[in-house]
Amino acid sequence: MQIILLSGGSGKRLWPLSNSTRSKQFLQLLQDPDGKKESMVQRVVRQIGESALEASIIIATSASQRDFIETQLGGKVDVVTEPERRETFPAIALSVAYLASQKGCSRDEVVLVMPCDTYTEARYFDVVAKMVEFVEQDVADLVLMGVPAKHASADFGYVLPATAGEGASYMKVEHFIEKPTEKKAQELMGKGAHWNGGVFAFRMGYMMDLAARYVPTHDFAELRERYGELPKISFDYEVAEKASSVVMVPFDGKWKDLGDWKALVRELPAHAMGNVILGRDVEGSTVINELSLPVVCDGVKNVVVAAGHDGILVCGKQSSEYIKQYVDPIHMRPMFEERRWGTYRVLDDARYADGSHSLTKSITLHPGKYISYQIHHHRTEVWTFVEGEGIFVLDGEARRVKAGDTVIIPVEHYHSIKALTELTFIEVQMGNPLIEEDIERFDWDWSKVGGL
Amino acid sequence: MQIILLSGGSGKRLWPLSNSTRSKQFLQLLQDPDGKKESMVQRVVRQIGESALEASIIIATSASQRDFIETQLGGKVDVVTEPERRETFPAIALSVAYLASQKGCSRDEVVLVMPCDTYTEARYFDVVAKMVEFVEQDVADLVLMGVPAKHASADFGYVLPATAGEGASYMKVEHFIEKPTEKKAQELMGKGAHWNGGVFAFRMGYMMDLAARYVPTHDFAELRERYGELPKISFDYEVAEKASSVVMVPFDGKWKDLGDWKALVRELPAHAMGNVILGRDVEGSTVINELSLPVVCDGVKNVVVAAGHDGILVCGKQSSEYIKQYVDPIHMRPMFEERRWGTYRVLDDARYADGSHSLTKSITLHPGKYISYQIHHHRTEVWTFVEGEGIFVLDGEARRVKAGDTVIIPVEHYHSIKALTELTFIEVQMGNPLIEEDIERFDWDWSKVGGL
Repeated sequence: MQIILLSGGSGKRLWPLSNSTRSKQFLQLLQDPDGKKESMVQRVVRQIGESALEASIIIATSASQRDFIETQLGGKVDVVTEPERRETFPAIALSVAYLASQKGCSRDEVVLVMPCDTYTEARYFDVVAKMVEFVEQDVADLVLMGVPAKHASADFGYVLPATAGEGASYMKVEHFIEKPTEKKAQELMGKGAHWNGGVFAFRMGYMMDLAARYVPTHDFAELRERYGELPKISFDYEVAEKASSVVMVPFDGKWKDLGDWKALVRELPAHAMGNVILGRDVEGSTVINELSLPVVCDGVKNVVVAAGHDGILVCGKQSSEYIKQYVDPIHMRPMFEERRWGTYRVLDDARYADGSHSLTKSITLHPGKYISYQIHHHRTEVWTFVEGEGIFVLDGEARRVKAGDTVIIPVEHYHSIKALTELTFIEVQMGNPLIEEDIERFDWDWSKVGGL
Repeated sequence: MQIILLSGGSGKRLWPLSNSTRSKQFLQLLQDPDGKKESMVQRVVRQIGESALEASIIIATSASQRDFIETQLGGKVDVVTEPERRETFPAIALSVAYLASQKGCSRDEVVLVMPCDTYTEARYFDVVAKMVEFVEQDVADLVLMGVPAKHASADFGYVLPATAGEGASYMKVEHFIEKPTEKKAQELMGKGAHWNGGVFAFRMGYMMDLAARYVPTHDFAELRERYGELPKISFDYEVAEKASSVVMVPFDGKWKDLGDWKALVRELPAHAMGNVILGRDVEGSTVINELSLPVVCDGVKNVVVAAGHDGILVCGKQSSEYIKQYVDPIHMRPMFEERRWGTYRVLDDARYADGSHSLTKSITLHPGKYISYQIHHHRTEVWTFVEGEGIFVLDGEARRVKAGDTVIIPVEHYHSIKALTELTFIEVQMGNPLIEEDIERFDWDWSKVGGL
């Protein structure tokens, strides 16, 4: 069977640790059973591996998340990136086309779609296994997971089963209600409505036919090319709500969206993470520090303190669900990024009275990794190597560089760098002003360079 | 008349904004009547200027504070630096020798000594004027200021007047009690004791004779040379407590030591300073941010948040007096310094697996300013100029540099830089490891270079 994990979002609700490229599912704040740091998506992939499911995993995401996924899950999953952001129906259609044309999955194979950031327990995957079984037994075209509603939340979609028979292993779905008012939600709970868990199982062919109504192809490359022809609509609206043959399998266990600080800190392994000094008089609070500067905290109660490369949050736990409004207007470049080749940190982003602009970064490449061969039209760069060894290419000429060396890259000069060992350099970009997307990428054949 | 301002302390009680070089009196958090930022020492010097006193000011301090004083008060005060830290009696003795031998003050001239960081109001200086008058009238050898004790604090020295006559303009002092227990303080208050305000007036000759008992010279250079022979003792113990002819002049007005966050924030002009976003639900709190990163704060009550180059503090107001214990163990180089030539900020201080070490700074020199001609024995430096123009000297050869240029300074090469305009460069230091005091300074005659 195949599992499609949906990895979306660019939320700022966990600001300053989450930003436009680092969505919440990539924050390594949780802990695996060995005590190692783990992100939400790493946790879900680990849990699938530990379950009885014998599943291949493919992650449907945007191009901006590819590097994070490769860094955190490299080798464990396939990645399908949308050419543009277009909601869950097209993303699932594209993933199914990938499975059909790239992985040779048949129309009969069962596919399960689920969010990549659900915080849940092992029993959840037992329910997933049951859902797959029901598809295999042709109980319905579409099998979805329902979570018994615990309170009348206006934040969830609801599923109303036709028969709410106690102990039934599945229930026919009567209808869907998207984010009702709290009053309506209360009414629905009385009728046995469940929250829609966003987990769906079906056969490949079912989805292939639905997608072909818009773009009549099962070829991945072609569908990706014509991605804009698929409607911008969620799977819930386009498929689940219109389906005539749908059953729901209930899961009554730990199932959470760690979507704001209040929800997240409840599940964290520690109340102080990073360079943090807690005084004696700290109560019900969590302090997370990703910076090298120390954070000292004392005399506070029920607060969340989060210090990251993008900013510093000091927030009462109750208020943490409302920070989005304060954070949204902050327009700042990401100050820290993980890439497939390593990481970078912005050390300084300075504008001067004469209109010029400099950007200083610390850039680390992992052994064997390289950045693309590129030129800039508006900026010069000075790189000072401070750790390790690598091969630097300037205008087609390759040479060894090592800690202590400095290279100057004038405007319009082709350049690239490959790490031989862990390699760190301090980059100073200068321009008047610097232009964010001032980069043009070219091909470079590293094999012709060798180890020099 | 002469005023000696005592500028000591390297307190961490206002951490992270104060550190070993930036004492609390240099923090520019207050506001002058024109709405400009002002430090405590700037405020006191301004208030003296606005008072009826016609006084020259000299600041007695340590060498590490000289650059701050020149930056904040350049031209308005003389500075006398102690060759080593030795308490207030030797510091005052050295300042008096400076007044006698460098400024030609006579033995009869009245000197007033006061702390440089008292937070007070204009009327305070009227009392100071009266103190000076009483010395001129030879009412006593030593005239000091007493502040009516407002509560039984164990943190102050107390002065018990012999006659506590209501409305007297001065009172003879019976005796001194250094930091009594609270119980004893209560008892003293009943007897009309005052807090010792640390303000003393006397004639030059009085102090010159007292100092000469230890080092028989009135020559500044000689006394500075023999500074270690002066006893390490406070003026209170060595002079005030032993004096036979002492009167006290009461000052019953605003008189505060803004020594911890709780006391300081009460006097600040705003509750948010720097790049700060306050949510709707913030009460009785102050957020100060010296970093460029945004601080977002919501849902907190009675807290102080201070973010600076040395760290981040999140603290209940009541707890702020106890932070010293948590902050003292933090051993970190200062991350931001003001110098006579400009400022620097540490952007990155990194150690690598192979034992090597790099330090990246942003350094700004003001127009016309220069750093000393120097060599390093263990580190190489790469400077990339990002703003302005200057003259760079390497091994005796001077040349113009400007934004966009990069210079490499290998180990053991003599170098210096002078700014022609506001000049900023990014410096990357490398060593294995870097040694903090790896610098040797030499003379360089900038006049022979000219403007190039």
